[in-house]
Amino acid sequence: MLIEGNQYHTIWLDGEEIKIIDQRWLPHEFKIATLKTADDCAVAIRDMWVRGAPLIGITAAYGMYLAAKSASSENWGKVLSEKAEELLQTRPTAVNLRWALAEQQKIIDPESWENTVLQLRNNAERLKQLEVDSCEAIGTYGVSLIREIFKKKNGAPVNIMTHCNAGWLACIDWGTATAPIYKAKAEDIPVHVWVSETRPRNQGFSITAYELGQNEVSHTLLVDNAAGHLMQRGKVDLVITGADRVAANGDAANKIGTYLKALAAWDNDVPFYIAIPTSSIDWEVHNGLRDIPIEERDAKEVTHMMGFSKQEWRQILIAPENSKVVNYGFDVTPAKYIRGFITNGGIISANAEPLKQLNYLNI
Amino acid sequence: MLIEGNQYHTIWLDGEEIKIIDQRWLPHEFKIATLKTADDCAVAIRDMWVRGAPLIGITAAYGMYLAAKSASSENWGKVLSEKAEELLQTRPTAVNLRWALAEQQKIIDPESWENTVLQLRNNAERLKQLEVDSCEAIGTYGVSLIREIFKKKNGAPVNIMTHCNAGWLACIDWGTATAPIYKAKAEDIPVHVWVSETRPRNQGFSITAYELGQNEVSHTLLVDNAAGHLMQRGKVDLVITGADRVAANGDAANKIGTYLKALAAWDNDVPFYIAIPTSSIDWEVHNGLRDIPIEERDAKEVTHMMGFSKQEWRQILIAPENSKVVNYGFDVTPAKYIRGFITNGGIISANAEPLKQLNYLNI
Repeated sequence: MLIEGNQYHTIWLDGEEIKIIDQRWLPHEFKIATLKTADDCAVAIRDMWVRGAPLIGITAAYGMYLAAKSASSENWGKVLSEKAEELLQTRPTAVNLRWALAEQQKIIDPESWENTVLQLRNNAERLKQLEVDSCEAIGTYGVSLIREIFKKKNGAPVNIMTHCNAGWLACIDWGTATAPIYKAKAEDIPVHVWVSETRPRNQGFSITAYELGQNEVSHTLLVDNAAGHLMQRGKVDLVITGADRVAANGDAANKIGTYLKALAAWDNDVPFYIAIPTSSIDWEVHNGLRDIPIEERDAKEVTHMMGFSKQEWRQILIAPENSKVVNYGFDVTPAKYIRGFITNGGIISANAEPLKQLNYLNI
Repeated sequence: MLIEGNQYHTIWLDGEEIKIIDQRWLPHEFKIATLKTADDCAVAIRDMWVRGAPLIGITAAYGMYLAAKSASSENWGKVLSEKAEELLQTRPTAVNLRWALAEQQKIIDPESWENTVLQLRNNAERLKQLEVDSCEAIGTYGVSLIREIFKKKNGAPVNIMTHCNAGWLACIDWGTATAPIYKAKAEDIPVHVWVSETRPRNQGFSITAYELGQNEVSHTLLVDNAAGHLMQRGKVDLVITGADRVAANGDAANKIGTYLKALAAWDNDVPFYIAIPTSSIDWEVHNGLRDIPIEERDAKEVTHMMGFSKQEWRQILIAPENSKVVNYGFDVTPAKYIRGFITNGGIISANAEPLKQLNYLNI
């Protein structure tokens, strides 16, 4: 997608190094960072230079390539298993991380270090392209929902609410929740996006608003608290969010606050969809609400905020000093509040049977 | 209640002037401001030096006294009706403002300016004491709910969630939502309060956390988005919020985001109560969801945040510059999601009949 009129991916190979858009500085500064080692990749994931389930997975996949490359013909096996474990531990909730690492581990050639380096590189590129294709497929399926609403509204703009950032900046290109929106725009369907702040880290304002602005999609900002009121007033036609992990029963873990939006959508009969590549489905978890682990993060994300003041970054304290804080990164939306999943394999209802079918077809 | 160990009210007469706790500087600085004219009172209400429905009402009542005092024997009638209108326009949602102004207008003595000045002063003091008494009564009734839960939990601490600030700093003393909590503490019932941030103006962190801390009530901070997750995990025994206006059908307007907490409470079978003095009930509005006007506020409250950086106040920008913003101050929680109202007249269910009874009894 576009930034300042130029086409970008969020991550790319540049010779023997990896380049990423360093998302910590958005929306005020656009910076590109270089990752030279697996440890660089782990830091980039853990400290959220990159974020979003699909992008985290691909960053880890490239991390495995960098780990192999910088190892020696003696220790490469040991290094690879250590680094895989280290990368896996960077963020606990997203299943894509595990998926991407498993895909990389599958193609290790125990007979040859040189071949493994080459294969890990090629496979990272392949996984990256898979993510691009799968996001585009999500867009192609998802736009049908927007098209339908557009018809019913006799040409009035379609108002779509999202949460956090499940945009192209969370993926490689297109995004998950935003893919149908970008596809709608390409079809000249007038869309307007409600962008909610997404405290504590404000990815809605800092990332989603930024990417929609850069790609000229009409949007309006709201605090997370205002989502229900907008739905009560009939100002939301459709909610689409991403998810970090979907359980086999259709429960979906996504950025903290998603569950509240799902409840408000349900109460106001607004269709609530989750857009995911099938790599975000965790077939081993059968009850998401009970069994998806929820990351707890640093208190400072809650008590402090970063922003621009007089053209420079400043951190401010917004609570009494030394307050006790709880900071969950995600919550789980029960399947019953999800109208459906927009996947790269089509749109399906949020319950075990259609999900199982998807798994069976290996889409 | 206590600040740095001393007993305070939020507003008090000091000779011929009014003193208030200027709440714009909390939690980082404790400042007292002086209001000398009705216009000062209007500014203090509009710019939120004081906030909270009961406190707004009393500030306006004192404003009427100041208006009369500074008028002349020629123009005082005209001045009083102009200032009443001006004060009424400062904030559109809270019904207490209208109530307090009406109570003041009732006692105007058309025959005598001097007597009117005196009566407005005395009546403001009377209304203030009414609010203190009514908050204490809310506490006395409400603590029974906490006591019951405490018994069921066999002595484990009772976890109460609130939203925004309906504490003593929003009233004169005791608070509405906090009154049962302070009463429980006085009874040595172990209570723990979940304090949600309350974007955009963060009254949860800046005011509620501050007043609970000053009065040694155990509490933990969370972003608004985390409320649902905490309830799903069984970590909330009771939700108590305030309200700015309750309609005759039991629908309740309160700080934006209250509705989302009510939905989560309903979904997880957590009792959700609203604590209000009966002066917050608007008998003329029969359908709150449809007819309570909702204030829209400045975009800057959403895109910017104020806080402390290196021991001084700083404002930071947290969104792309010049983003389009929507900023509703309140939302309406439908009566069906409210387990009951804790009022100065007792605890009643949230529907038209018991409310009507309360009106009939003129409590």
